[in-house]
Amino acid sequence: MAKKVYLAGPEVFLPNAREMLDRKASLTRAAGLIPLSPGDLEIPPTNSKRELAAAISTVDEQMMLEADAIIANLTPFRGIAADTGTTFELGFMCALGKPVFAYTNVARNHTARVIDHFKGAVSPDAEGRLRDPDGLSVEDFGLIDNLMLHSGIERRGGIIIVGDAAADAVYTDLAAFEKCLAAAARKLSNA
Amino acid sequence: MAKKVYLAGPEVFLPNAREMLDRKASLTRAAGLIPLSPGDLEIPPTNSKRELAAAISTVDEQMMLEADAIIANLTPFRGIAADTGTTFELGFMCALGKPVFAYTNVARNHTARVIDHFKGAVSPDAEGRLRDPDGLSVEDFGLIDNLMLHSGIERRGGIIIVGDAAADAVYTDLAAFEKCLAAAARKLSNA
Repeated sequence: MAKKVYLAGPEVFLPNAREMLDRKASLTRAAGLIPLSPGDLEIPPTNSKRELAAAISTVDEQMMLEADAIIANLTPFRGIAADTGTTFELGFMCALGKPVFAYTNVARNHTARVIDHFKGAVSPDAEGRLRDPDGLSVEDFGLIDNLMLHSGIERRGGIIIVGDAAADAVYTDLAAFEKCLAAAARKLSNA
Repeated sequence: MAKKVYLAGPEVFLPNAREMLDRKASLTRAAGLIPLSPGDLEIPPTNSKRELAAAISTVDEQMMLEADAIIANLTPFRGIAADTGTTFELGFMCALGKPVFAYTNVARNHTARVIDHFKGAVSPDAEGRLRDPDGLSVEDFGLIDNLMLHSGIERRGGIIIVGDAAADAVYTDLAAFEKCLAAAARKLSNA
């Protein structure tokens, strides 16, 4: 019985969202898995924006409950960190005890990205902890994003693939996704 | 038996992290609840940064498993969206079926913040969907952050408090936290 994988990520926001979701779904089927992606289901008609949001939330959570695993695209979105919808979903699947896999299309890690964001104005405090110009500490663990995400995946035996897409293809390059998918397929077929 | 509440948020990154965590913990006790906060436990010694990150992840997840509910500080962190560690934790607690509460210290909603971020250069496409200058769509549901967070809380009967802290106090003003705490205490005592 083929396993179902929830394909979380910011693709839903792309101008070519449908095309990208379809490409990821096709690759997932080719890897012997069943894709469940946020764009797959028609959302029932609603009376307000607020109800529409709730309907999408309901459908996406139902897909996660149905899925056997998640592949989360943690590529930074509109800033230095992953899309918060995707990170919510990653936490959701971790709590359910389902296998978790992730990838990012940006090779520079969390620490490097924060330093870039502040144009280098990050320095160690008296205890050696990195601080940004506002005094906020900067996680310096060599991870792709906040430690709850990265360590939460690794502690469960999940896999994180770090890609290095061209600047104009960070949301469309699927090389890291394909590697992550192959790793997930191996893991899930052995499970 | 007093209920335990996990206090998620970016306070751990503040220059005065210990003080802020202690203030939130004291207020929580005063509300008749038991605080569990990320800074509360000593982390066992580790051999590497990576192990330290994993140890913190382990401790925080254990606290969430022990907690009866979560109060998540979704105030935007280093950009337009909530801290990704906090959003992971919110998703984690939603999946566990535990009561979820949240607040933000920034009154401008997600849509308004994205428009600010792009200095107004956000406009509707042919279908009326808001797009940023990169063509990425902008959620326009009147929510505080990505719909998975906001709707995920509301759909569970959770409470979201929107504060409006001064610009220099977005991480330290506790007015919205106190309102959220009071609402959580009422809900949890009726449960």
